[in-house]
Amino acid sequence: MPHIELHTNEPGIRGLFHYRPETAAPLNALAEVLLRGDSTLSRGERELIAAYVSGLNECRFCANSHSAFAAAQLPEGMHLVNQVHTSPETAPITPKLRSLLTIAAAVQKGGRTVTDHQVTNARSEGATDQEIHDTVLIAAAFCMFNRYVDGLATIAPDDPAAYESMANHITTNGYGSP
Amino acid sequence: MPHIELHTNEPGIRGLFHYRPETAAPLNALAEVLLRGDSTLSRGERELIAAYVSGLNECRFCANSHSAFAAAQLPEGMHLVNQVHTSPETAPITPKLRSLLTIAAAVQKGGRTVTDHQVTNARSEGATDQEIHDTVLIAAAFCMFNRYVDGLATIAPDDPAAYESMANHITTNGYGSP
Repeated sequence: MPHIELHTNEPGIRGLFHYRPETAAPLNALAEVLLRGDSTLSRGERELIAAYVSGLNECRFCANSHSAFAAAQLPEGMHLVNQVHTSPETAPITPKLRSLLTIAAAVQKGGRTVTDHQVTNARSEGATDQEIHDTVLIAAAFCMFNRYVDGLATIAPDDPAAYESMANHITTNGYGSP
Repeated sequence: MPHIELHTNEPGIRGLFHYRPETAAPLNALAEVLLRGDSTLSRGERELIAAYVSGLNECRFCANSHSAFAAAQLPEGMHLVNQVHTSPETAPITPKLRSLLTIAAAVQKGGRTVTDHQVTNARSEGATDQEIHDTVLIAAAFCMFNRYVDGLATIAPDDPAAYESMANHITTNGYGSP
């Protein structure tokens, strides 16, 4: 049961957005530009970084929802997403994306754990400065979203169909649309 | 030295805002509504929560800057801010604010560490649902800002005058103004 009275049955962050629209607006705007705005990383790749960090933070609502959003936008679908969660070192992704996931995992532990070596490695695999920037900010943002969702003890649905329905909505309409 | 080329000498998050204005806009909008928007918590109290969490995350730029912003907006000034950093259990703050700092410290560790007991205690000290919500989101947001600033290895000035100058700008103009 959530720690505060949300006056809605909407799960996860959706209930929090309903409770406090003043903070929902910039949070949705941030997700929209980071995960769906112009970028040389595909939307599927960016959702995969978000899902991976949410898994590391053990935030069930965010991990399930962003895994569904990644799967809906990657040709390899949920099979690849599950491989990344289970074994990012061996999942069949590009060396560049793997190097960015390594940076994202460091950010999840704490900003100061990102090393020069990790950044040099990402750059040698073809990552641009903006891709490195956006990876750090996506990982950092999900350290916020995950804590927001779980810090207020919101509900996470068990049924995978709930997350597929959200994926359909987000990939069609974007973040912040009703 | 920052991990990416920022094309500016602006320190901390200010260099990152200059680098990527598309993400700066929602990040500043979030800080403005959370730390300066309508609330039954004073601006000084909210900056104190931000400074406290930034200290726990050992983010020097954010801890120094938000400590200066809190000090500028609390009658007791930097002396109280330092007491909260050093000993939140004994610092001369209200029982309600102390109970909210306890929740913020839990969020800093991870969302799932916030307990029913901590929330019940905050409520018994007079905290409203919205104050509990905003405390969780401020703490979560600074787990993002701290990781963003340190994950890209931005520069933190040594001179306290630099943070006092930022405090003057923020308390006069708000977040996101040039």
